[in-house]
Amino acid sequence: MFTTFYFYASNLCFLIAKMMGRNIQKVLLIFTIIADVSWSSVIDNRVDKYVYRGECHLPEALQKEIQGYQPVVNTIVDKILGGKFAGDTYNSLLEMTDKFGHRLAGSQSLEDSIDYLVDEFQKAGLENVHTEDAPVPHWVRGFESAEMISPRRAPLNLLGLGTSIGTPRGGIVAEAVAVDSFDELEAMPDSLVKGKIVIFVPAWTSYGQTVRYRSIGASVASRKGAVAALIRSITPFSIGSPHTGVQEYSSDVKKIPAACITVEDATMLLRMFRRGEKIIIRLEMEARNLEPAMSRNTIGELQGTQNPNKSVVVLSGHLDSWDVGVGAMDDAAGGFISWKAVQYLKQLGLRPKRTIRAILWTGEEFGYYGAKAYQKQHAATEKEEFNLFVESDIGTFDPLGMDFSGNEDALCIFREIMKLMTPLNATQFKTPTDGGPDISLWTNRGYPSASLLNKNERYFWFHHSAGDSMLVEDPITLDKNTALFASVAYVVANLSIDIPKTVTDELIEPELD
Amino acid sequence: MFTTFYFYASNLCFLIAKMMGRNIQKVLLIFTIIADVSWSSVIDNRVDKYVYRGECHLPEALQKEIQGYQPVVNTIVDKILGGKFAGDTYNSLLEMTDKFGHRLAGSQSLEDSIDYLVDEFQKAGLENVHTEDAPVPHWVRGFESAEMISPRRAPLNLLGLGTSIGTPRGGIVAEAVAVDSFDELEAMPDSLVKGKIVIFVPAWTSYGQTVRYRSIGASVASRKGAVAALIRSITPFSIGSPHTGVQEYSSDVKKIPAACITVEDATMLLRMFRRGEKIIIRLEMEARNLEPAMSRNTIGELQGTQNPNKSVVVLSGHLDSWDVGVGAMDDAAGGFISWKAVQYLKQLGLRPKRTIRAILWTGEEFGYYGAKAYQKQHAATEKEEFNLFVESDIGTFDPLGMDFSGNEDALCIFREIMKLMTPLNATQFKTPTDGGPDISLWTNRGYPSASLLNKNERYFWFHHSAGDSMLVEDPITLDKNTALFASVAYVVANLSIDIPKTVTDELIEPELD
Repeated sequence: MFTTFYFYASNLCFLIAKMMGRNIQKVLLIFTIIADVSWSSVIDNRVDKYVYRGECHLPEALQKEIQGYQPVVNTIVDKILGGKFAGDTYNSLLEMTDKFGHRLAGSQSLEDSIDYLVDEFQKAGLENVHTEDAPVPHWVRGFESAEMISPRRAPLNLLGLGTSIGTPRGGIVAEAVAVDSFDELEAMPDSLVKGKIVIFVPAWTSYGQTVRYRSIGASVASRKGAVAALIRSITPFSIGSPHTGVQEYSSDVKKIPAACITVEDATMLLRMFRRGEKIIIRLEMEARNLEPAMSRNTIGELQGTQNPNKSVVVLSGHLDSWDVGVGAMDDAAGGFISWKAVQYLKQLGLRPKRTIRAILWTGEEFGYYGAKAYQKQHAATEKEEFNLFVESDIGTFDPLGMDFSGNEDALCIFREIMKLMTPLNATQFKTPTDGGPDISLWTNRGYPSASLLNKNERYFWFHHSAGDSMLVEDPITLDKNTALFASVAYVVANLSIDIPKTVTDELIEPELD
Repeated sequence: MFTTFYFYASNLCFLIAKMMGRNIQKVLLIFTIIADVSWSSVIDNRVDKYVYRGECHLPEALQKEIQGYQPVVNTIVDKILGGKFAGDTYNSLLEMTDKFGHRLAGSQSLEDSIDYLVDEFQKAGLENVHTEDAPVPHWVRGFESAEMISPRRAPLNLLGLGTSIGTPRGGIVAEAVAVDSFDELEAMPDSLVKGKIVIFVPAWTSYGQTVRYRSIGASVASRKGAVAALIRSITPFSIGSPHTGVQEYSSDVKKIPAACITVEDATMLLRMFRRGEKIIIRLEMEARNLEPAMSRNTIGELQGTQNPNKSVVVLSGHLDSWDVGVGAMDDAAGGFISWKAVQYLKQLGLRPKRTIRAILWTGEEFGYYGAKAYQKQHAATEKEEFNLFVESDIGTFDPLGMDFSGNEDALCIFREIMKLMTPLNATQFKTPTDGGPDISLWTNRGYPSASLLNKNERYFWFHHSAGDSMLVEDPITLDKNTALFASVAYVVANLSIDIPKTVTDELIEPELD
């Protein structure tokens, strides 16, 4: 009954709005305030069905409005893929990564890249181009080397983990124990682990599950008395390359050096240990944690025709990278499709009602430092300031669509918008969003957000390794992703209503990536 | 007319043989001697049609004889895949590669592996287990490092090439030129190349075409006055790993250091050079060529019931490897399926008329040194001694069948034999053979030979890199390959006739791999 009432009431509102020629959004707002519920749960409060059984009942006017964007989306796609912009995202990405290489938090090359991008943004006609400060950790790798000494001598290719301490000068030589899980280590008597190097060799399941060994392996090992932790690189596939990433020491443990070794070596060491062979490893790492450095989020906009600081659509990726490879995939490409989407919309003369803001986050790899600073700086205004957060940080392979988070009302709008993406063959709609580490600071609190879905089966093959290079990227694919970002952003930024949201003020600490 | 005559004459011979209950082979031999042509070209001398249009006309008796092996092949496959041997090839391969690691020519680990295998062969019941000496080059890598100094600083991951000399102590620092082809280098004035490092960045086409840059790049560059050569790793796909391999100095050039760098870095350096940026590289290599070492081919047999040194079927792969990774794929696996095929046939009580001989060649990577020595040592007897040479050196991924070389008569027999491999879904027959570098010393001179066809699309991803590990191998797939080798070898070794051959005495120098 209740449901039915609101369903008809809502439709009535739209009808009135239509008849009055007034802004649907305002009518909805009024109605929402009265009903103290967000608008489409009013229409049908069988919430789960909206999302999971595809039973959206968008007001017809809104649905028609969204459908009306098809010609604009077609134009955006045509112009980006077939016109003078074709290949430009790729070329810009290539130019920057060739010029500066990696962009580790705290490094000069990151700051030089930011200066360069500010200049590029300005030359490209972006508006309100500026940076906003964000303190970031300053970890330096230094020389590192590892070698198996017993049962035979063999070099172990390794990459120290971000925030890891180094070894004493000259390195350490220690016996090793190898396990495939935390449970296996916990079951060992402390006396067996004390003074040894612990080698974690978890089988790859998913990144989310497996990365725990990299994130907290050193702390878990240290708690058992280990002197260092070596972790199987967090990847499902290897051609002899180690993969780095961040780790975090628990406050209650003695800090010990932590590094990832190759899947090849890690699996071999586990076999050796299980055969009862005595493994001795020499490990040397010069890694150091310096004083935090000041970095910057890099920002450029296409300002909306309405209040430009209200209901902004954010497109984003992070500019910082690890210090191996050039971070073309993780995540310069995500930042660049954000930048280029804004630039092309402007050059196509498509200025929407709301501002579209490209943000290239800094310090993501060490734990979303750029996003955290940005959140603090915009805390007072965030509810009014942000309409939608979009991020690309799980690859820019062939686009499939987008995944979204938000309340059920928002999801129904997103689902309708994604139907416009047929010219890109990228109409997939999924929920919740799963690929936006930086924007998770807002996603987790109910803000509407979205992440690029793409054919990224090989993403973790290259992730955080020397293989993260321009070879992973493709000009046509990048154009498609840029066109997808531009299309979604334009429609949302120009829609007659803001994306509905149900937010909490509680700050939720995101998990380390 | 001529053709028709021999066709009927041949059939008549078989008929006589059948009636007389005598050995078909002997009858054929007599007939062949009389006709001074090999036997099946007698049957039908439209030679090219046999091979390329599938028009084999095997004598019915022979065809029936081959078809009669189906139950034996079924048994071999069943027992190896489903019985106590299941997983054994993989486990043995794992045990040796874990125990000794790489097996570079001249290294102690290669010689230790050979000693170990002699022992394993004996324990496995192989017969006439022994080694035969073969001198091999003794090249040692030593410390090596490269860094781009200009236009920015970045480490360049590299692997020196086999036989390369080192740099002077302390390394060299030189400007670089980058080209994508020999032609592009040749077109440059010598003055532009003199004193510089030449970077070759050929696009991958096929291994055969692309590997020339690794094989002779240093010589080509030296002839233009270069001080070192860096070559894009010879692989179609990369995750930041360099690939090594052998190179050869022309006798007319000054020797200069040669190494492969990653595809990622090579393609970046080419772009930089083409933009007109000044590239300066620091290169240090301690590589040295020591006095040749004595190594050994490792041999074990299942001796035939007839003269065991006559008409031997050779199954082979090479035991030596590069000094990165553990050479599980290239080519311990090829050697191990040869070994295990012989072992299992014996354990199954399947002793054929002719001897099946497993040979694990040494010194292949530097230019077939083991095979060359073997050829010399067996030159006097080779025509009578060898019936068929089989090799596996292009991967032991899922088997598809085999490719063959030999005269048209031989090819028709092989084609018929491959039809027996339906239980392995590995019935493909191709010609000529393309994957037997060691046995090419005989293949090139007309000896019947064969190589494993397998789903090796990713072979060069791992080839000569740190990625050549047990992760490339799979227990079930190895069992299938062992079963295929065992089946083909058994049928050929037990057939009523030798494989016909048309050989030349001319020695043909094979190309470097």
